Amino acid sequence: MEDNGPSEWRFQANQHLIAASSRSIRNIIVSLINKLGKEDERPAIFLGHGDPSVFPSFRTTVSAEDAVVNAIRSGKYNSYCQDFQGLLPARRAIAEELSRDLPHNLSADDVFLTSGGVEGIKSVAAVLARPNANILLPRPGFPEYQANASLYHLEFRLFDLLPEKSWEVDLQSVEALADHNTVAMVIINPNNPCGSVYTSHHLMKVAETARKLGIMVISDEAYATINFGENPFVPMGTFASVAPVITIGSISKRLFVPGWRLGWLVINDPNHILSKTGVVESLECCQRMTSDVATFLQGAIPEMIEKTKEYEEFHSKIIKILRDTADICYAKIKDIPCFYCPYKPQGSMFMLVKLNLELLEGIHDDMEFCVKLVEEESVMLLPAVALGLKNWVRITFATEPPTLEDGLKRLRVFCQMHSKK
Amino acid sequence: MEDNGPSEWRFQANQHLIAASSRSIRNIIVSLINKLGKEDERPAIFLGHGDPSVFPSFRTTVSAEDAVVNAIRSGKYNSYCQDFQGLLPARRAIAEELSRDLPHNLSADDVFLTSGGVEGIKSVAAVLARPNANILLPRPGFPEYQANASLYHLEFRLFDLLPEKSWEVDLQSVEALADHNTVAMVIINPNNPCGSVYTSHHLMKVAETARKLGIMVISDEAYATINFGENPFVPMGTFASVAPVITIGSISKRLFVPGWRLGWLVINDPNHILSKTGVVESLECCQRMTSDVATFLQGAIPEMIEKTKEYEEFHSKIIKILRDTADICYAKIKDIPCFYCPYKPQGSMFMLVKLNLELLEGIHDDMEFCVKLVEEESVMLLPAVALGLKNWVRITFATEPPTLEDGLKRLRVFCQMHSKK
Ligand SMILES: Cc1ncc(COP(=O)(O)O)c(C=O)c1O
Ligand SMILES: Cc1ncc(COP(=O)(O)O)c(C=O)c1O
Repeated sequence: MEDNGPSEWRFQANQHLIAASSRSIRNIIVSLINKLGKEDERPAIFLGHGDPSVFPSFRTTVSAEDAVVNAIRSGKYNSYCQDFQGLLPARRAIAEELSRDLPHNLSADDVFLTSGGVEGIKSVAAVLARPNANILLPRPGFPEYQANASLYHLEFRLFDLLPEKSWEVDLQSVEALADHNTVAMVIINPNNPCGSVYTSHHLMKVAETARKLGIMVISDEAYATINFGENPFVPMGTFASVAPVITIGSISKRLFVPGWRLGWLVINDPNHILSKTGVVESLECCQRMTSDVATFLQGAIPEMIEKTKEYEEFHSKIIKILRDTADICYAKIKDIPCFYCPYKPQGSMFMLVKLNLELLEGIHDDMEFCVKLVEEESVMLLPAVALGLKNWVRITFATEPPTLEDGLKRLRVFCQMHSKK
Repeated sequence: MEDNGPSEWRFQANQHLIAASSRSIRNIIVSLINKLGKEDERPAIFLGHGDPSVFPSFRTTVSAEDAVVNAIRSGKYNSYCQDFQGLLPARRAIAEELSRDLPHNLSADDVFLTSGGVEGIKSVAAVLARPNANILLPRPGFPEYQANASLYHLEFRLFDLLPEKSWEVDLQSVEALADHNTVAMVIINPNNPCGSVYTSHHLMKVAETARKLGIMVISDEAYATINFGENPFVPMGTFASVAPVITIGSISKRLFVPGWRLGWLVINDPNHILSKTGVVESLECCQRMTSDVATFLQGAIPEMIEKTKEYEEFHSKIIKILRDTADICYAKIKDIPCFYCPYKPQGSMFMLVKLNLELLEGIHDDMEFCVKLVEEESVMLLPAVALGLKNWVRITFATEPPTLEDGLKRLRVFCQMHSKK
């Protein structure tokens, strides 16, 4: 068949989808990786994305691996999961684990298993996307929220986080943005990309604002276990009697296995407002149409959670490393003139740093800064324009300490080389 | 906080999503399971859904389990997969394996890993859903196509499969339904629910029709390895130079591990029409926004595929069982007066049987038939109304032979009890 086919093929590109996905940071990360200096004999240093699981110090626990291997070997989890919310023992174990920090008890029915936190974000967007509805998202933020809202034609509006106030939510801007079509606001705590951990007092204010506006709070707690500063982590669900809360979580940062793709959505709603309004039913319907988490991974959850001793040792080790690397990172960055860091991270794996472009020669924005840095020094940072903030960069300090030191040294050299004379 | 909250909560149920998901057969299966006769001491017999993986005869190969265990134990696959299309060695292995039956060679770039075939269906719907576009779906069919088309506001139109013509596609009805907004047609081969395996000649006609209409063919080959009749399985990709083809596949029925959630989308398009029109780019964007398959499962694929000897032994054993159980099922069903089965299955795990309601007392449709059957005999069949065909039932013959014989015996008794005197 040598002709070019019918006069016209009827299918076309889907521009809406292409536009929605352009918000994903994967694009930027891949494009930066492609710019890595080919001639540089030094190893590349990745301080751009939040996945230290390749480093020996961050290798997950043997007991977590055992749990998955045992589930596979049992032969009991080869079948489709009959329960689209997830296997009951898995949901029960998660409900119990999370209830330990809450004033109310979660039941297994409150838990939905998801393929990582990312799928939780997708489901929330699908469920909330009713005609004309809008959702309030933080700036800077995690771009998957915008991407998925766009995908489902859910309008989003951005409220600010305040660098001078420990990156707290600007609740005035939340109130100013909301209207009668606003259905939810998203918070991320511990925060990516700011490294902040919200106080109980601030979370209460968030809940009160949500209540006043008649909206729910989506609380992304992917980094729930990663806090090492003064403020203890407080789950947003603590204030669920003020306004209903849907929590997003996963084992990606808890066990440092983001490749395992296992997460959850949790309904925190002691007053049953989300079930009365049909939001829970909508979520159930959404999950029914979504591919499940591999059944053997679900089957492994109770054993993973039971092995608390191994987990606690692992957790203390990780927290110690991150406390140290956050210290190192903050101290070294403070010493570089073209940088300004308003907040020393207390949680997550990230620090947000402002560029003083006036001190730099021939660099006009954060993107250009990161491209030249990767080309000249083989060091990757994330330009914060990808997160909604121009002329900031996000630095990941979750890495082996010597690697971080090396990366920060190169960063310093780079800034010196490009500083105005 | 004892009041009932703000005067009005702004969020509501998502009726669109609830309606879309109502098409999913999971609802019907769960509602039938809930009706299982509580007093019946005999074991329940599930001939309603296509998952025999719990039965000892269908237990997957040790080498498949080994591959996953080795991947976990290696510690190499704990990280996020950097490549949103899937790990290169995994895609390369799948491309090579599938190319063995094709006139053109697939490259790794043609392969996208998905969380089971179901996620492939979702991605196709998302990509094709442009304003006003429509897709042609088979009736009877696999309801996930309708559910996902609805979810993404993609109009669908149903063409018939012809029971008297080995359940081939009614190509006249395809042509009659298509208009200039039609972008694709779906075929399922080997077919769920009909058990048919299309001839090469019929597939060529499908391709020619698609070409004439300027549309692509989505070929669901989830059951590619499950054929045991006269017609050899021919991949639709064979005719991809006539009209572009996107193939959906998975290991769910190949290795009898549907709980592992591992599948693929494959671009069969030697003339590069899908890339020239931007459909491939749209698919890439869609995948970028979708949670990945667990990295260790991706890592296990090359080893799973390499162990051909173990797989071939397993495959011959399974095919022998299914050939036998299809024979048994067809023979016994032919003997029951209120049933009519126009076609003896050659592939997949299903047989479609028409009810002659005139011979039955007090049973008015397929749903009622299945409800009473499960209540009285603890045997589950799938009412074909769930698949778009009223007053037929789908019987799964993929089960241990003694279980099948027992189920068919109870079915016979049930029909006798309810037959008009
Ligand atoms: C704020 C935030 N939420 C959710 C996620 C989702 O992670 P996963 O899908 O691996 O659970 C991430 C991952 O980086 C994140 O940073
Ligand atoms: C026709 C058809 N396509 C696709 C699938 C998807 O299967 P999976 O998601 O397990 O790969 C199935 C499963 O039953 C099916 O019957």
